[in-house]
Amino acid sequence: MPMPKKINFETLKWIGGIDGHLKIIDQTKLPERLIYIRCTNIEQLYDAIKTLAVRGAPAIGVAGAFGAALSLKNISARSAFSAVKNLKKDCKYLASSRPTAVNLQWAIDRVLTYAQKFVIQNPKASLMHLRRAVLKEAKAIYNEDVQMCRKIGINGAIFIKNGMGILTHCNAGALATAGQGTALSVLYEAKKRGKKFTVYADETRPLLQGARLTAWELNHAKIDTTIICDNMAASLMKAGKIDIIITGADRIASNGDAANKTGTYGLSVLAKAHKIPFYIAAPSSTFDLDIKSGKDIPIEQRSADEIRFLYHGLPARGSTARMAVLQLTPKGVKIYNPAFDVTPAENITAIITERGIIKSPNSHKIANHFQKEGI
Amino acid sequence: MPMPKKINFETLKWIGGIDGHLKIIDQTKLPERLIYIRCTNIEQLYDAIKTLAVRGAPAIGVAGAFGAALSLKNISARSAFSAVKNLKKDCKYLASSRPTAVNLQWAIDRVLTYAQKFVIQNPKASLMHLRRAVLKEAKAIYNEDVQMCRKIGINGAIFIKNGMGILTHCNAGALATAGQGTALSVLYEAKKRGKKFTVYADETRPLLQGARLTAWELNHAKIDTTIICDNMAASLMKAGKIDIIITGADRIASNGDAANKTGTYGLSVLAKAHKIPFYIAAPSSTFDLDIKSGKDIPIEQRSADEIRFLYHGLPARGSTARMAVLQLTPKGVKIYNPAFDVTPAENITAIITERGIIKSPNSHKIANHFQKEGI
Repeated sequence: MPMPKKINFETLKWIGGIDGHLKIIDQTKLPERLIYIRCTNIEQLYDAIKTLAVRGAPAIGVAGAFGAALSLKNISARSAFSAVKNLKKDCKYLASSRPTAVNLQWAIDRVLTYAQKFVIQNPKASLMHLRRAVLKEAKAIYNEDVQMCRKIGINGAIFIKNGMGILTHCNAGALATAGQGTALSVLYEAKKRGKKFTVYADETRPLLQGARLTAWELNHAKIDTTIICDNMAASLMKAGKIDIIITGADRIASNGDAANKTGTYGLSVLAKAHKIPFYIAAPSSTFDLDIKSGKDIPIEQRSADEIRFLYHGLPARGSTARMAVLQLTPKGVKIYNPAFDVTPAENITAIITERGIIKSPNSHKIANHFQKEGI
Repeated sequence: MPMPKKINFETLKWIGGIDGHLKIIDQTKLPERLIYIRCTNIEQLYDAIKTLAVRGAPAIGVAGAFGAALSLKNISARSAFSAVKNLKKDCKYLASSRPTAVNLQWAIDRVLTYAQKFVIQNPKASLMHLRRAVLKEAKAIYNEDVQMCRKIGINGAIFIKNGMGILTHCNAGALATAGQGTALSVLYEAKKRGKKFTVYADETRPLLQGARLTAWELNHAKIDTTIICDNMAASLMKAGKIDIIITGADRIASNGDAANKTGTYGLSVLAKAHKIPFYIAAPSSTFDLDIKSGKDIPIEQRSADEIRFLYHGLPARGSTARMAVLQLTPKGVKIYNPAFDVTPAENITAIITERGIIKSPNSHKIANHFQKEGI
C-alpha cells in the first residue's frame, strides 16, 4: 500500500537523526494559529501531553514512543544497560501524563520492552547503538500509526452513504494521530470514494476540540461541516438530520465498553433512543484486554479551571496580553470536570479497527477479533 | 400570603412614577459584575431583551408589560386614543424581540388589551390617565409574577427530598422572573423547609446561563451547587448522582410539549433512559393553548456569533478593552444555533404551575387544569 498523503500539516514528527527532536503542533493555539512546539526532552513532552498541546489517544502513543528517544538522548549514563534503567523511570513518568488513554501506555511499554530486549540480546551494544535502535522502533510505531489510520478509514468508509448527516464528537482526526485520524479517517476515505455528506461537529466542551480542531481539519479537507453545541445533538437527531454517529476512543475494555471524551456516553444513549447507528473507530492499541469492563477504566479528572476559565491564544481586541483568560463561573462554586466517560458495549453498533469491523461488540467477539490475527 | 422576600438583588424593577424608567440587571455582565441598565424607552428595552441583558420567559413578559408604560411615556400623541394606536405598533415591535417565549406576547397582549378597553370605557380620559392605568396594570403583572413564582416553588417543593442530586439546565431562577424563579423557586422553597440537596447546574452553551447565572444565584442563596458541562449530565445520571431533573419552559403547547433552552430535549431523553423523573416548572402564562403541539412552536435561531465568539464583560488580564472577544471556531465553518428545542409531553413526568401539578401531561389534563380554575 502506498503511504497515504498527510493533509498538509504534521501533528507530530521526529526532526533530524538521533540527536533530533520531536516537532508537534501546539493544538491549544488552533484554530487561530498553526504553531509548532519543539520537544527536546521528556519534561517538555510531558507538559505538551498534559496541557493537550498534543492529544488524541493514538497521537500521544506515538509521542510517548519518541519520548523514549528523548530520554536516551539526554541521559548521562555511559552504558546502554544503565540507560535502560533510567528509561524505565522516564517511561513511568511520561505514562502518568494522561491516565485514561491506553495507547500511551501501550506505545511506551513497547519501546521500553524493545530497549530491554535489545540490551540483553546485544550485551556489547553502546548507548549510541541503543539510541539508534529505539529511535527506529519509535519511527516504526509512527509509520504503523499512519497505516493503521488509513486502514481504519478504508474499513469504515462502507458505512458512509451519499447524503448522510454524520455527527462526531471531540477530535478523532489527523490532529489526534500521526496519520489521517480514526473516526475522521473514515470520512476522508469516504470523500476519496466520491461520497457527499454533511458533518455535524459537537463543539466538545470544555476544551472545544470539536469546534477548534475537528472543524479546522474538516474545513481544510473541504468537507461540509457545521459546528453545534454539544447540547444541540439530540434535537438534530429528532429532526432526522443525523444518520450515523462516529467517534474515536481512548480505551476499550475486553467486553467492548469504550472510554472516550466526556459526552460520548450521552450521545450513545441518544443514538439508541433515536435508532441511529453509533460507531467507534479506534486502532487495536486502544483495546485493553487486561480489563473486563468499563468499570475498570480510570477516568482522568482534569482541573476545574478548564471550565471556570476560557484560556485562549487569541487575546481580546486591542489587548497586548499574550493569552486571554476569561472567568466564566462565579467565584466559590464547585466544578466537576471528568475528561472521559464510558460508553457500554451494548450502545455501540460496531467498532471499526484497522483489522476489520466488530459488530455489536462483546467479550467473545473481541477475543475472536484478536485471535484471528494471532495476537 | 405575605410578599416573598427577594434574594437581595432585583432582576427588574420600575423606578419612580409614570415618568420613571425600568431598571434591569445587565445579565450579560454576570457573574463578574452586578450592573444595572436603565431603560427609558422601548428601543433600549428591545435591545435589552434581544441581547439577553434581561432574559427568562417570565422576566421578559414583565419587562414587556413595563414596555407599554415606556411607549406611552415617550409618545408625542395628545389623545389617549391616538396613544393606544401607537402603543399597538410599539407592542408588535417589542414582541418581535424574542419569538419563542410566549410570556412576552402574553404580557404585551394583556396591557395592550387593557389600554384599548380603558380608552373605550373612559372616552374622556387624558393621556396622563391612560399612562397611570397602564403602569398600574404592568405593576400588577409584576406582582402576580412574584406571587406566581412563590406558588410554583411551594407546589414543587414536595418533589425535593433530603440528599437528592438535582440537575437543572439554563436559568429558571430569580434572574429569569420578577420573583424567585420557577424551577429554582422549587429549590428555594425546599431549602426553606430544611431540605438538604445538591444541585448540578448544566453550564448551558452557548451563552452559559447555567454557569454564569444559575450558579451565581444558587451560590448567593447558599445552596450546594456544582457546575458541569452540558455533555457531562448523562454520565452523572448513569453514576446515580441525579435523582430528579427540573427546568423551566418558554412555551408549552396545549398537549404538553414544551419548548425550553436548547439541550432540554436531550436531557429529557436521557432522563427517560435512566428512569429519572423530569419536571418542568412554569407559570400558566407559558401555556399557549392555541397551538396543538410542539411542532407549531417557532424556534428562534440566534446568531452564529454566539458560538463562534466568546463575548464577555471581563476583558483579558492587562487589557484595557471593555469587552473580551475570543474567536473559538475556524473561519468559514458553518454554525447552527437554535436557542430552544422541544421536549415532547411523554418525556415530562409533571408540569408544576402556580395552580398545581399536571402529572404525565396531555391535552386532556391540561385543558382540565385550566378549566378547573375557570380560565
